[in-house]
Amino acid sequence: MTGKTFNVVLVGYGHVGKAFYHLLREKRDFLAARYGLRPEPRAVFRSSGGAVPGFLPPGKDLGLEPGQRVNFPEVLTWHPELRLKTVLEDIEPGVLIECTPSNIRTGEPGLTHIRRALDSGWHVVTANKGPLVVDFKGLKDRAAQSGLALMFSCAAAAALPTLDVGMHSLAGAEILSLEGILNGTTNHILTRMNQGASYAEALREAQARGIAEPDPSLDVEGWDTAAKLLLITAAVMGTNLALKDIKVEGITNVSPEVLDEAGGQGRSLKLLGRVRREGGEFKAEVSVTALDRSHPLFGVDGTDKGISYSTDTMGTVTITGGNSDPRAAAAALLKDIINIFR
Amino acid sequence: MTGKTFNVVLVGYGHVGKAFYHLLREKRDFLAARYGLRPEPRAVFRSSGGAVPGFLPPGKDLGLEPGQRVNFPEVLTWHPELRLKTVLEDIEPGVLIECTPSNIRTGEPGLTHIRRALDSGWHVVTANKGPLVVDFKGLKDRAAQSGLALMFSCAAAAALPTLDVGMHSLAGAEILSLEGILNGTTNHILTRMNQGASYAEALREAQARGIAEPDPSLDVEGWDTAAKLLLITAAVMGTNLALKDIKVEGITNVSPEVLDEAGGQGRSLKLLGRVRREGGEFKAEVSVTALDRSHPLFGVDGTDKGISYSTDTMGTVTITGGNSDPRAAAAALLKDIINIFR
Repeated sequence: MTGKTFNVVLVGYGHVGKAFYHLLREKRDFLAARYGLRPEPRAVFRSSGGAVPGFLPPGKDLGLEPGQRVNFPEVLTWHPELRLKTVLEDIEPGVLIECTPSNIRTGEPGLTHIRRALDSGWHVVTANKGPLVVDFKGLKDRAAQSGLALMFSCAAAAALPTLDVGMHSLAGAEILSLEGILNGTTNHILTRMNQGASYAEALREAQARGIAEPDPSLDVEGWDTAAKLLLITAAVMGTNLALKDIKVEGITNVSPEVLDEAGGQGRSLKLLGRVRREGGEFKAEVSVTALDRSHPLFGVDGTDKGISYSTDTMGTVTITGGNSDPRAAAAALLKDIINIFR
Repeated sequence: MTGKTFNVVLVGYGHVGKAFYHLLREKRDFLAARYGLRPEPRAVFRSSGGAVPGFLPPGKDLGLEPGQRVNFPEVLTWHPELRLKTVLEDIEPGVLIECTPSNIRTGEPGLTHIRRALDSGWHVVTANKGPLVVDFKGLKDRAAQSGLALMFSCAAAAALPTLDVGMHSLAGAEILSLEGILNGTTNHILTRMNQGASYAEALREAQARGIAEPDPSLDVEGWDTAAKLLLITAAVMGTNLALKDIKVEGITNVSPEVLDEAGGQGRSLKLLGRVRREGGEFKAEVSVTALDRSHPLFGVDGTDKGISYSTDTMGTVTITGGNSDPRAAAAALLKDIINIFR
């Protein structure tokens, strides 16, 4: 078998975790042919226990076409007694994929998983924002001290490559400011409101379509945007902000008058996360802002996202798009894995 | 002296070469502090000879502020007898920066410079499209065999990170198609034509402002776009196209009727470079295309550029902006250097 083989442990088996597991299988031959990489999933954990896939149980072939979208079938057998700690210590370190639910106040349970993985010599790729919001510097230092990668594209707008562009494509430039539409749910609701819907109508519609969660507060009150803003600016501008340092406004109090005024001026209301340097300080805020047609994020509608970097040497570079579904989130995890091991 | 020191040889001392040389000086402390890198310019070549800078002649201090834009002063002494070959063989290999004028038919003189550098163990970063258009595969193979980098962001739309996003941010995804506005000169002319100017007026205006060259044929006939399209698709889709494989249309024959029709439909005419897979084949073309408002490149006006990738897993990812001036081109060269040595 040619190619570089490495172990993968997945923690968290919700929408994104399942999509990732499925994508690893679907892309198996492609990864070997294009990148010479053979990721081997060795264990999967969810709250009810762990499973050892050996990729698929012998004799099972799902007969999926590449790109086919199905709910991942129940081919894993869960063992309540299987421990993450044991697996991380017993097999050769590779990469831990952290996909448990995000808690931006405590960081748990992801924080414990990531610390444990780094301490056992595993690289970490996380879809979970919580641990990094709570302890960005501590986790990055811990990874750096051991020469390990800690990558989080998926937690920082997923398929929209906010971090890659900021850290790699703009290397050598100083980022003077950045602005982003970083949350697809609120952008979808605001797009409908710009078209005439009320907040309540637009929210109900988004919930009915699965775009907004039953409890939408993290999104609509701006905290999801703030969390992503914190991660992105920490990575690309070297900030060390806490959530409380960011002035956060949501979309729940946008008045019809403000909407009418923006519309009358040909502007579009967006929930923007922004950071700029003022003297030696970084000022960060999340607020509803009216963009005019000439703004590079003006046309970012619906569940799309976008980010715009202003630099000293390259001018303004803007990235928009990237799907917001679990498959695209899984693809962002896979991208980070490839960029660690290629 | 802390940090990683490496030798830099610059070939070509026109607008971009000078801007690069200036930028290296301006960014010297920043590169050391942020990336631990200390590039040492050891020789500069232009058609009239070579110069050995020792960065600046002793006793000279230009007193520039960071970001200050000046023509680089004449501080180099040119020696007609200094040979590139001698320098490449005599000092420890680092990185050659190729900034001579682009000839997309012969690739020379850059082709010879790049081959010589790779054969002497030097990494290469090129602003010059010509050598890669003529012999992409040969040069990439030659670099790969010696474990050397051959980077060309500057030749592939410069500050717009077409290659980084295609190769790094979309790793693991299959790029199904791409579309780009890759030439700022023609986009500026078309933007003015969309606003009502005739082709002749818009061209004269662009020439007066230094946006179009006195002989604008490479730009307006679509060949510059085709050359960039060739490089980008070779890098990100693994194509091996020659210029003759690309169907190329320029902007010289856009009729008032076509402009009126597009304008009446709320569309905007753009010179698009496009590649898509059809079966196992790649179809590439450069043509004037009417984009409607929902197209991600619709708002890319004036000298701005943009590129949009459609993928199997991440949806469509679009990048727009990035300055088109020599300083931004120099910043794209510097970015590649950092990403080689960091």
